[in-house]
Amino acid sequence: MAYVDIVTALAILQFIVFGIKVGRARGRYGVKAPATTGHEVFERHFRVQQNTLEQMIVLIPGLYLFSRYFDPVWAAALGVLYLVGREIYAAGYVRDPAKRGAGYGLSAMPTLFLVIGGLTGAVLHAIGR
Amino acid sequence: MAYVDIVTALAILQFIVFGIKVGRARGRYGVKAPATTGHEVFERHFRVQQNTLEQMIVLIPGLYLFSRYFDPVWAAALGVLYLVGREIYAAGYVRDPAKRGAGYGLSAMPTLFLVIGGLTGAVLHAIGR
Amino acid sequence: MAYVDIVTALAILQFIVFGIKVGRARGRYGVKAPATTGHEVFERHFRVQQNTLEQMIVLIPGLYLFSRYFDPVWAAALGVLYLVGREIYAAGYVRDPAKRGAGYGLSAMPTLFLVIGGLTGAVLHAIGR
Repeated sequence: MAYVDIVTALAILQFIVFGIKVGRARGRYGVKAPATTGHEVFERHFRVQQNTLEQMIVLIPGLYLFSRYFDPVWAAALGVLYLVGREIYAAGYVRDPAKRGAGYGLSAMPTLFLVIGGLTGAVLHAIGR
Repeated sequence: MAYVDIVTALAILQFIVFGIKVGRARGRYGVKAPATTGHEVFERHFRVQQNTLEQMIVLIPGLYLFSRYFDPVWAAALGVLYLVGREIYAAGYVRDPAKRGAGYGLSAMPTLFLVIGGLTGAVLHAIGR
Repeated sequence: MAYVDIVTALAILQFIVFGIKVGRARGRYGVKAPATTGHEVFERHFRVQQNTLEQMIVLIPGLYLFSRYFDPVWAAALGVLYLVGREIYAAGYVRDPAKRGAGYGLSAMPTLFLVIGGLTGAVLHAIGR
């Protein structure tokens, strides 16, 4: 389980770094709180962070469900794929929002796999197989 | 615990479906990333997804706290109520935001009950009853 | 672990209260759903709630990681610091967004400490120390 915990902590730290970039973009592009619009590049950073928040509520339970019914090492490996995919997603989105697709898929696919795997395992367990 | 895990996974998949609907509404109503405003119907789908994210940070820990101190089967049953309430909420919100109240209550009540139940159980445990 | 569970439940209830304040501000300042802009004070309440959501995806896993590898009582104590910091943050932000810094730091520091502590513990465990 330590591997899954490491991936969980790294995903949180990645999310915190995205948040720090939002804060810096606030200053650089003069978007004063509580506004979240007003400069295109700020909005890209903000959307990266917000979308990552949405992914994490999928990723973190998914990691633990998959670990419980299948294998923690495989869960952690899928989590590493997510981390890499998110970096590609974030870099792509900030450069050009139209090109965020590849990184998005690479980070969303492993999280979806974790959840569907966890669901399958839990159902098989509940019906006693 | 398998029942609680099944409900957790279903809530995540429901949230992913709401997210897919946001993506489709982006295309259909011409709201280009990173914008999150610009067309009323897109904004309804977006708010459904965002509000569901807010609910999930209540639901998922609530399910496990309630299971730990009370009963996993009851926790799962309250989670099913949440799932149904969210479907009603989402359908109502997209049709007419003014009528989102009933579905909202039906999904928020069980999550609140899970958290307050979990808190009560944890406090009773901490004071040794 | 009961102390950590109590702090988790209190953090969720604090988040729910911030959400209720957003709902009340909607009515008071005439910001009709699905809009999330239109009145400065509403937007402050909304940003408090949204930022708290971002903090909770850091706090809750952090509490459990730190508890697993170090100590649940210390984790809970850091969580209490977070709860106090969030109250100061919320009150400051609604009064004047420019003065949200102190409360922000007081709530973000303990959560960062929980995650980095949890990561350190998990890595030490994985390499067998």
